Amino acid sequence: MEKLIITVATTGAVTTRDNSPYLPITPEEIANEVFDSYNAGASIAHIHVRDEKGNPSMDFEKFQETVERIKDKCDIIINLTSSGGLNLEEEERLKVCELAPEFASLDAGSMNFGPSVFINSPPFLEKLSNNMNEYNVKPEIEVFDTGMINNALMLAKKGLIKPPFHFQFVLGVPGGMTATPKNLIHLVDSIPSGSTWSVIGIGKHQLAMNTLGIVLGGHVRVGMEDNVFYKKDELAKTNAQFVERIVRISGELGREVADVNETRKILGLNHVGVVK
Amino acid sequence: MEKLIITVATTGAVTTRDNSPYLPITPEEIANEVFDSYNAGASIAHIHVRDEKGNPSMDFEKFQETVERIKDKCDIIINLTSSGGLNLEEEERLKVCELAPEFASLDAGSMNFGPSVFINSPPFLEKLSNNMNEYNVKPEIEVFDTGMINNALMLAKKGLIKPPFHFQFVLGVPGGMTATPKNLIHLVDSIPSGSTWSVIGIGKHQLAMNTLGIVLGGHVRVGMEDNVFYKKDELAKTNAQFVERIVRISGELGREVADVNETRKILGLNHVGVVK
Amino acid sequence: MEKLIITVATTGAVTTRDNSPYLPITPEEIANEVFDSYNAGASIAHIHVRDEKGNPSMDFEKFQETVERIKDKCDIIINLTSSGGLNLEEEERLKVCELAPEFASLDAGSMNFGPSVFINSPPFLEKLSNNMNEYNVKPEIEVFDTGMINNALMLAKKGLIKPPFHFQFVLGVPGGMTATPKNLIHLVDSIPSGSTWSVIGIGKHQLAMNTLGIVLGGHVRVGMEDNVFYKKDELAKTNAQFVERIVRISGELGREVADVNETRKILGLNHVGVVK
Amino acid sequence: MEKLIITVATTGAVTTRDNSPYLPITPEEIANEVFDSYNAGASIAHIHVRDEKGNPSMDFEKFQETVERIKDKCDIIINLTSSGGLNLEEEERLKVCELAPEFASLDAGSMNFGPSVFINSPPFLEKLSNNMNEYNVKPEIEVFDTGMINNALMLAKKGLIKPPFHFQFVLGVPGGMTATPKNLIHLVDSIPSGSTWSVIGIGKHQLAMNTLGIVLGGHVRVGMEDNVFYKKDELAKTNAQFVERIVRISGELGREVADVNETRKILGLNHVGVVK
Ligand SMILES: [Mg+2]
Ligand SMILES: [Mg+2]
Ligand SMILES: [Zn+2]
Ligand SMILES: [Zn+2]
Ligand SMILES: [Zn+2]
Ligand SMILES: [Zn+2]
Repeated sequence: MEKLIITVATTGAVTTRDNSPYLPITPEEIANEVFDSYNAGASIAHIHVRDEKGNPSMDFEKFQETVERIKDKCDIIINLTSSGGLNLEEEERLKVCELAPEFASLDAGSMNFGPSVFINSPPFLEKLSNNMNEYNVKPEIEVFDTGMINNALMLAKKGLIKPPFHFQFVLGVPGGMTATPKNLIHLVDSIPSGSTWSVIGIGKHQLAMNTLGIVLGGHVRVGMEDNVFYKKDELAKTNAQFVERIVRISGELGREVADVNETRKILGLNHVGVVK
Repeated sequence: MEKLIITVATTGAVTTRDNSPYLPITPEEIANEVFDSYNAGASIAHIHVRDEKGNPSMDFEKFQETVERIKDKCDIIINLTSSGGLNLEEEERLKVCELAPEFASLDAGSMNFGPSVFINSPPFLEKLSNNMNEYNVKPEIEVFDTGMINNALMLAKKGLIKPPFHFQFVLGVPGGMTATPKNLIHLVDSIPSGSTWSVIGIGKHQLAMNTLGIVLGGHVRVGMEDNVFYKKDELAKTNAQFVERIVRISGELGREVADVNETRKILGLNHVGVVK
Repeated sequence: MEKLIITVATTGAVTTRDNSPYLPITPEEIANEVFDSYNAGASIAHIHVRDEKGNPSMDFEKFQETVERIKDKCDIIINLTSSGGLNLEEEERLKVCELAPEFASLDAGSMNFGPSVFINSPPFLEKLSNNMNEYNVKPEIEVFDTGMINNALMLAKKGLIKPPFHFQFVLGVPGGMTATPKNLIHLVDSIPSGSTWSVIGIGKHQLAMNTLGIVLGGHVRVGMEDNVFYKKDELAKTNAQFVERIVRISGELGREVADVNETRKILGLNHVGVVK
Repeated sequence: MEKLIITVATTGAVTTRDNSPYLPITPEEIANEVFDSYNAGASIAHIHVRDEKGNPSMDFEKFQETVERIKDKCDIIINLTSSGGLNLEEEERLKVCELAPEFASLDAGSMNFGPSVFINSPPFLEKLSNNMNEYNVKPEIEVFDTGMINNALMLAKKGLIKPPFHFQFVLGVPGGMTATPKNLIHLVDSIPSGSTWSVIGIGKHQLAMNTLGIVLGGHVRVGMEDNVFYKKDELAKTNAQFVERIVRISGELGREVADVNETRKILGLNHVGVVK
């Protein structure tokens, strides 16, 4: 079995300081958490930024600063969000590609999301794919339900994204597919052969879904974007704690963890390393 | 196995006269098509209306006229759309409940839909459920992907909809779950026991999905809302043609077709017959 | 979708005249039933013979006579059983290959079978595969449960059978996999891509499983070997009745029926009907 | 989630000293290994015995001595094999019930097993069930493929075994269901609700299947009966090593391990350890 790719998502758009006082928010805090996670075994950092009030943001300079701070510390692979949150401007969401990260999320459809609606319309997905191509960014296809796999394949049919695809399955968002092992296997069975995939379980489902990712030959994402509890009623104090646990579990299961170069190879990242 | 419930959806919101010159559009045309379908074996009519230009509409008086014309002809069970189309006013969508049909669709979430986005936000779904309760309308829970089952269960947890639930699985919309037998079985496996369900296959998938519905013990919907071709390259001339074929197939498979009273019993419609 | 291959299995080893007075038993009766089924649309005849008392038998001359009588009437593809029944001599079971039919069953494992045990040991399966190779017989891999697919793949690994494989799924034998749509799909998902498959439902499951075979792109087997009832409480009077119904259903579903030459092409039967 | 039941199967019938020099064979060796496993967290010991030459055996006195030696050391729950190996006498297999263990395996059908055939005919299963009832032994229903679940349900229909059932899924025996996550989930989906289950993966599949058992809410069996390698190319030196690893993994996953009394409660073992 391929080595395991661990992505850390330290911050996200939904988690707040009310959820956890340990949530990193500023570029400096995020860079520190990413660096600790890197040292623990993460090879990809999925990055969101926040504005001065801590609200979800697609602020270009915040991204720039955050990425620079990370790059100063380590060579972890940068994966930038292209959603930022639920209701951000399409213009700004598209602009993030100009930072030319190796990797960026592409949320492959629309859905109810908690009490709100997460909109990624077909024309927006086409524009985003085009932008990613222009800046040589590999899309991480985020899939919250089965139809989004097909949405990605429709983009592929138009030549807008190219195989081999990398899918990030996000299970357990209210509005999306529930986080059950059977659902995960159904998704894995539904992607084109030759694809790679990773899995996120929201909240209390994080650990079970991650463990299935390890066992099934997929990859995993951990971090406070998805879950703030290390265990029942106990908040994680750092994002690295989550990474460390995955490293231990993967070790017990005899699956080695990929470093950044191995991750690049597995995902076919052509690392022009252009993040400006 | 329970008798088979056949719903006819003569018109819908997406199909146009360009797709098929046989599409019924006016209340009179719709009522005629419904009546023929009733005579062929349909026990439920799922109704959309169009404005004077043939565009999707939630015009209250059109609904009223259509329902009256149908009621004049036969006692088929009326199922009114509560979406009308993709971008109609929530206000108007909610108002349709005031016609107090026995049954109305409730699209249990948001999704990309063809080139557009079909929005049914969580607050809207709560309002719609409340309205249905007020007018004693049973919701037909339309499910386009797995997460929508969970959306319905979240409404149920809040007491807004009540078991036994009836699910209408809609497979093959670009943006939703693809129309494969495995996907259908995955959905059927995912609903609470005691639920009833029906299945729609969009376009060329109509017949296969319907046949699976018959074999698996579900129910079926046919009609020009979902598909205009009777067979490859041959347009259906009437909605009743689709019903007749289902009746023949169900007959070959030894499953009897439910009349309106049997359908009411299977679905637990308390038929206050209130459609004004 | 490929054209549909219909196999008729007129007699089998388990069905008795007590089960149905219409069961063909003598070579002459069998040949007549096969011919009628051929005229109705069957392109393969799966053949068992009986001894003078009507008991299951692997009598070489009975096979010879039956095949000759069929060949006199039509060019249907001959598929000979290599089991004959539950407890017949391995020697005799192997010998049937000497008749060099185009096709013969290979029961890919052991299992409880009704009140008895059906034994096909690994060494026997190797000998049988060797014999089939020697006489240029294509194996129809009969699969009664999931492990038998793997048994076939183990034979393939040893070079004893060669892809593309043809699987015959037999669902509903007490002791084997139960006849549910989900089980059938699980099997279909478990075979190597490039394989062809057909499905048998035992007893009351025959029609539902056959219909799924048509819808899912597989092929079907009908006949009194598997089921004697045409519908609830009504015996089939002929094997051809079953074939006729499949032809009608397949017609409704828009899937054409394969004639013998089309069947040879689909299955890669390379062998010119050399049954001596 | 229920606490995790760990069964240790130290010896089995197939593993030899050639496979591993650490295999316990004599009653004394087995008792020692069981005791160490108990201390590590196992609450059930699945017991086979061997004859003087180390061959599989159903020798009554060996069972007696082994059980006594274990009972002298600890209160682990005793689960005796009722197969002993592949070709042992039915008489002797049935007699083991007279030791009145709380628990004993019941292999719910026949199958190819490696190069041989493992026979558990329907009449034998009925006799064995009767014997278990007579001695108040709870059956551990061993399932090697899907049909065996149905075999158990047929015994239940005759009143020979009673719910709630406990299934032991054995995946990866050549001849049985292969050890894939999807297969395991298919089995779990196929048992009556209210049942408990545990899972065994043969050879290199042990650890992955066990981990799935933990995640899916089932239980697990480890030990040299099923697998001798602790990791690739490294033999386990003790059975306890396997138990210790499961305890660590289960700890990481936040699932507690059941002690013997908790295990009795989960399985409904009503029977006071009467092994004579
Ligand atoms: Mg820190
Ligand atoms: Mg020792
Ligand atoms: Zn994100
Ligand atoms: Zn509609
Ligand atoms: Zn046969
Ligand atoms: Zn054992």
